[in-house]
Amino acid sequence: MSVSTIARRRHRVVIIGSGFGGLFAAKHLKRADVDVTLIAKTTHHLFQPLLYQVATGILSVGEIAPATRMILRKQKNAEVLLGDVVGIDLTNKTVTSKLMDWERVTPFDSLIVAAGAQQSYFGNDHFEAFAPGMKTVDDALELRGRILGAFEAAEVTTSQAERERRLTFVVVGAGPTGVEVVGQIAELAHRTLEGAFRTIDPSEARVILIEAAPAVLPPMGPKLGLKAQRRLEKMGVEVMLNTMVTNVDYMGLTVKEKDGTERRIDCACKVWSAGVQASPLGRIIAEQSDGTECDRAGRVIVEPDLTVKGHPAVFVIGDLMNVPGVPGQAQGAIQGAVYATKHIKSGLKGEDPATRKPFKYLDKGSMATISRFNAVCQVGKLEFSGFLAWLAWLGLHLYYLVGGRNRLIAVISWFVTFLGRGRGQMAITERWVFARRAMDQVQEQQTPKAIG
Amino acid sequence: MSVSTIARRRHRVVIIGSGFGGLFAAKHLKRADVDVTLIAKTTHHLFQPLLYQVATGILSVGEIAPATRMILRKQKNAEVLLGDVVGIDLTNKTVTSKLMDWERVTPFDSLIVAAGAQQSYFGNDHFEAFAPGMKTVDDALELRGRILGAFEAAEVTTSQAERERRLTFVVVGAGPTGVEVVGQIAELAHRTLEGAFRTIDPSEARVILIEAAPAVLPPMGPKLGLKAQRRLEKMGVEVMLNTMVTNVDYMGLTVKEKDGTERRIDCACKVWSAGVQASPLGRIIAEQSDGTECDRAGRVIVEPDLTVKGHPAVFVIGDLMNVPGVPGQAQGAIQGAVYATKHIKSGLKGEDPATRKPFKYLDKGSMATISRFNAVCQVGKLEFSGFLAWLAWLGLHLYYLVGGRNRLIAVISWFVTFLGRGRGQMAITERWVFARRAMDQVQEQQTPKAIG
Repeated sequence: MSVSTIARRRHRVVIIGSGFGGLFAAKHLKRADVDVTLIAKTTHHLFQPLLYQVATGILSVGEIAPATRMILRKQKNAEVLLGDVVGIDLTNKTVTSKLMDWERVTPFDSLIVAAGAQQSYFGNDHFEAFAPGMKTVDDALELRGRILGAFEAAEVTTSQAERERRLTFVVVGAGPTGVEVVGQIAELAHRTLEGAFRTIDPSEARVILIEAAPAVLPPMGPKLGLKAQRRLEKMGVEVMLNTMVTNVDYMGLTVKEKDGTERRIDCACKVWSAGVQASPLGRIIAEQSDGTECDRAGRVIVEPDLTVKGHPAVFVIGDLMNVPGVPGQAQGAIQGAVYATKHIKSGLKGEDPATRKPFKYLDKGSMATISRFNAVCQVGKLEFSGFLAWLAWLGLHLYYLVGGRNRLIAVISWFVTFLGRGRGQMAITERWVFARRAMDQVQEQQTPKAIG
Repeated sequence: MSVSTIARRRHRVVIIGSGFGGLFAAKHLKRADVDVTLIAKTTHHLFQPLLYQVATGILSVGEIAPATRMILRKQKNAEVLLGDVVGIDLTNKTVTSKLMDWERVTPFDSLIVAAGAQQSYFGNDHFEAFAPGMKTVDDALELRGRILGAFEAAEVTTSQAERERRLTFVVVGAGPTGVEVVGQIAELAHRTLEGAFRTIDPSEARVILIEAAPAVLPPMGPKLGLKAQRRLEKMGVEVMLNTMVTNVDYMGLTVKEKDGTERRIDCACKVWSAGVQASPLGRIIAEQSDGTECDRAGRVIVEPDLTVKGHPAVFVIGDLMNVPGVPGQAQGAIQGAVYATKHIKSGLKGEDPATRKPFKYLDKGSMATISRFNAVCQVGKLEFSGFLAWLAWLGLHLYYLVGGRNRLIAVISWFVTFLGRGRGQMAITERWVFARRAMDQVQEQQTPKAIG
């Protein structure tokens, strides 16, 4: 054997996204003979299911958003790049990302696209300024400012109508996130803030959950949905089912009931959790593959092996993929990551892509917390709720949080919030307050135009 | 005694500010027969001495910024109002504050003004965009984005000069804050980020501390100053003494040494901790009092009883007051609060303001941490440094943090950071990244104009 033998170039895997799909894909390639480049537009891995706790002052950003780079620090075959992906070229097998003015072209042999989804307003993008979604850390901090700021404003204003408007909170969409955030707003009003104000009584706040479907938590079935609804109502939440939101503006929103009645709800703080729109990267990929399409939400309708037609080395996973029966949840993303990396690894050993067995989703169940000590939980045909379900929620979320420190601090924070009534992360920074003030002023001027 | 006797109106105390001065003043009036209104422009009580740990990813905002309203919740005689104070009328005894469009006029019988200070650029306010100070939570989060973002940018750029510029960090001002933040930037580069990047070696970062005086920590005397300097140099910090900053722009800064030599330092991340400017409320008060003046930093030169001439019920405390020998530190503010509230209380019992004994400051010493396990400490004539001083720092800061949860989480975070090498709060939100990107672009365009 000659010393001049040129080393075989290592197989290059590019991963787009640092959510559950992207991070788990990188981790599952730890022992593989590949070079991994993870490109993401944030520096952190976001534990989205707990974002609502950041928005309502229970957890800090750090607990649910550890730096991706630090998680992968010891994985020598992986590098992390901050940047927005602005182009994917399936023919030349490159990904172009941009940070500030620097474009970087990263070549790949295999590609895993796990770019996720953002909030959807179903074509009414002008709703967003008035009713932010809850998809990013910024969303959560913005909402924290709006939720807690509404009570502050109510304490100061001398107008009774304005006070009532500030003390009305509306959450649109009764999926897990909507249910969880509305439950925590109710707990803030009824428990946490008790006695903290002198002019207003926070427990007089109106907390409203609006859902177009006839039940809360529609995918969890009528029984658990009804349990969740009853519990929310017991906590003082007004649940409006069969109700569509037809307009959102600075002063409040307009809803339409099933019988066609239109109603106005004056409210300052609106939270949108009614739908998702997949990353635009989905369409960029689909356009380059004959026979691959996206669904209405922009998700890529992938082949049974999670790839796009004609490109067996290009996997689409997580919230960006459309596989019938796989919900847009962490479990689906993680299982997609495991599947994709398994076949990348066996491909190195010569596996023919045509022989891949189709991806099979194992439903590990789903759950939503409603209040302290109370959750609903569904595992296959098993349904349970109440304290036991809450304990299951607790254990599962602790298990999936990244890092011992984050787990420990989350437990302490939950102890303080749920057994006591403290919330450790109620700070609204000046920028958030200013953002709110600026927005208040901008919207005040825009309102006449914004109302259709 | 007739039932129609009208209850005597309670003495009204208005406090402006929620820092050490304002919060301790409110707390010390807990058992007094007064009504307290605390007006502040933030919703939190900021523990400023630990802001540098938020900026460098060790602590979250919540640990050092608990909600003022929650701290005072059980103090029935106190109310908390969010708002900017826009007017103080000493003749009619009212304070006017503003939140959004709502102006609120609060009458007082006694007034405690503890509105603090902000960063000063000594007339060069255009430096601020390029070199933020560290006075608010927003400053700290902005700096966290700039410090950690500089490493991210260095990893991505392909220009060697730009990489070096991004990996050069300059802290201006070698007071306690400057020393502490520069020490943590050095620890980030040399310890925390070790192995986290693939293109750059974070330990090759240049970390520079610039001070116009001939020593670091000037008020702590030459011996401790030299100790701190030696320790910083051992950690890889370049200490430039006798050096003035003459210009700051997007690309870096210009310094002038004692002999008149001007030098350019190319650097992306600049931190300003070189001076303070008192709240403009100081001048508003001084203008209404014959014979009261402000010093150059805008601090009110108060009477020996911390009041303004002719207004024995108007106290100015904390960083807004100028009393010879009292440093702008938490201790001075707390002692001022205790003094002012003591005389408000004895005033209720008929004390003649003319008989008040002058305020006497008890110097409990000062300290600064330099790195993990290393601090300098001065208590009267006693000076010590090293591990023992660090333990003293640890105990004292824990003692003054508000709330058991915050103390516990701070201890865990310090354990993780100083014994291990983790930092739990390294998340840069998209807004901070975007702010940085936007600024980068704005400044890029402004640079030709900005360079004088």
